[in-house]
Amino acid sequence: MFGDVVRDALAVATGVGRAPLAGGRLPRPVIEIVERDDGLVSAVMAEGYLAEPDRWPAHDLRALDRVRGRVLDIGTGAGRIALALQSRGVPVTGLDISPGAIEVCRVRGVRDLVHATVDQHAGAGHRYDTFLLLGNNLGLLEGRERAPAFLSALARMAGPGARVIAQGTDPYGTTDPIQVAYHKDNRGRGRLGGQLRLRLRYRELATDWFDYLVCSPEELAQLVAGSGWRVADIDNTDAPYYLATLTAIG
Amino acid sequence: MFGDVVRDALAVATGVGRAPLAGGRLPRPVIEIVERDDGLVSAVMAEGYLAEPDRWPAHDLRALDRVRGRVLDIGTGAGRIALALQSRGVPVTGLDISPGAIEVCRVRGVRDLVHATVDQHAGAGHRYDTFLLLGNNLGLLEGRERAPAFLSALARMAGPGARVIAQGTDPYGTTDPIQVAYHKDNRGRGRLGGQLRLRLRYRELATDWFDYLVCSPEELAQLVAGSGWRVADIDNTDAPYYLATLTAIG
Repeated sequence: MFGDVVRDALAVATGVGRAPLAGGRLPRPVIEIVERDDGLVSAVMAEGYLAEPDRWPAHDLRALDRVRGRVLDIGTGAGRIALALQSRGVPVTGLDISPGAIEVCRVRGVRDLVHATVDQHAGAGHRYDTFLLLGNNLGLLEGRERAPAFLSALARMAGPGARVIAQGTDPYGTTDPIQVAYHKDNRGRGRLGGQLRLRLRYRELATDWFDYLVCSPEELAQLVAGSGWRVADIDNTDAPYYLATLTAIG
Repeated sequence: MFGDVVRDALAVATGVGRAPLAGGRLPRPVIEIVERDDGLVSAVMAEGYLAEPDRWPAHDLRALDRVRGRVLDIGTGAGRIALALQSRGVPVTGLDISPGAIEVCRVRGVRDLVHATVDQHAGAGHRYDTFLLLGNNLGLLEGRERAPAFLSALARMAGPGARVIAQGTDPYGTTDPIQVAYHKDNRGRGRLGGQLRLRLRYRELATDWFDYLVCSPEELAQLVAGSGWRVADIDNTDAPYYLATLTAIG
């Protein structure tokens, strides 16, 4: 599904490949639809996945300035982060579970790509100094069940002094009754308030339902406790968005 | 549902009113989601409902040049067509079934507004010289069952020499297997190929399922036969989009 989104977005942006058409003839923008299990729908303009750094939110640029050593870009998507690092001469590997995303990254010039989950890749014996979870990819921690295994996989790939730089969003600043009710309902079921149950839809395709975590820095600190990582810094400049820097313990 | 879409789009465009926010704090674009009964989803940028004439497709401008006399703008939405006619000094009434759309039209300065279906309004004794169905609103004919009643309601409101100017889209130029299969399945169930079964979704809201017709000029001619109207002209310049002009018989 996501592969189709970024492939179509690339075709629209470059004019190369099969661009999606309206009425069978006219180009149309690529919009990814996010459906939440309470029926809330939202939409994401896919062109953002291809954006050049001058159109990025400021925290993405600050994240890149924090990078050092060998980098694993987790959930590399259409490769915007990996390409920017490559152009700075930084050794970077793009990791994604979407074969379509990997293909788009290759077309766009990302040199080092891995099609795998972090768990699968952790067995391959590579070591990294920086793990990037940008574009809200802190969400890949999912919740209390998945977070320990995810962080443990990163710890197994961590070189000495490694760090995780993850972008999250604090969901609790809102007074929107829909969001407040969703957070409350989640907690009533033993989940984190912002543990979103989502599926992505694009044209006739839909992913399975999956958890994606939107959490506060305080919740993150609790999830990280005992994982082999600790929260070394929270950059809250663009709240409700934040950049969390985790460092390996010991 | 549609009222919330255009209200939020107005708030984003003008900075006046409650604009929708991402993460409870940052503005986000308003995108309306269209779900079809085969699972196909698409998305519409709501800013188009507020667009000034310099951003319209050319056929909308040509439609306005065909207008004469008193005008009923059917499915006036956020009032872009009605406002343009008003500024040309044309007497125009905006009709919509969405109370939120009517409210947005009023805020934007549309002077003559009716909250009703065409059937309801046909009983009110008004007469018009031009009926506009722009922005794909030929779709309001729905299909073989609804079209006669819809056209009959317009005929009851028609002054001498009245015309309907309707914008449609010919759906059959595509080779997209999803669309071709949908058209075939529709025909197998006795429906017109492009008789879409849709619902609109926005945030937590969804309309009921409804039919919306996308038909060829040939199909339109068959629907119009016996209705008190005839197809006088098809302007195909922007195919697959077209402007159909119907004139009253007798």
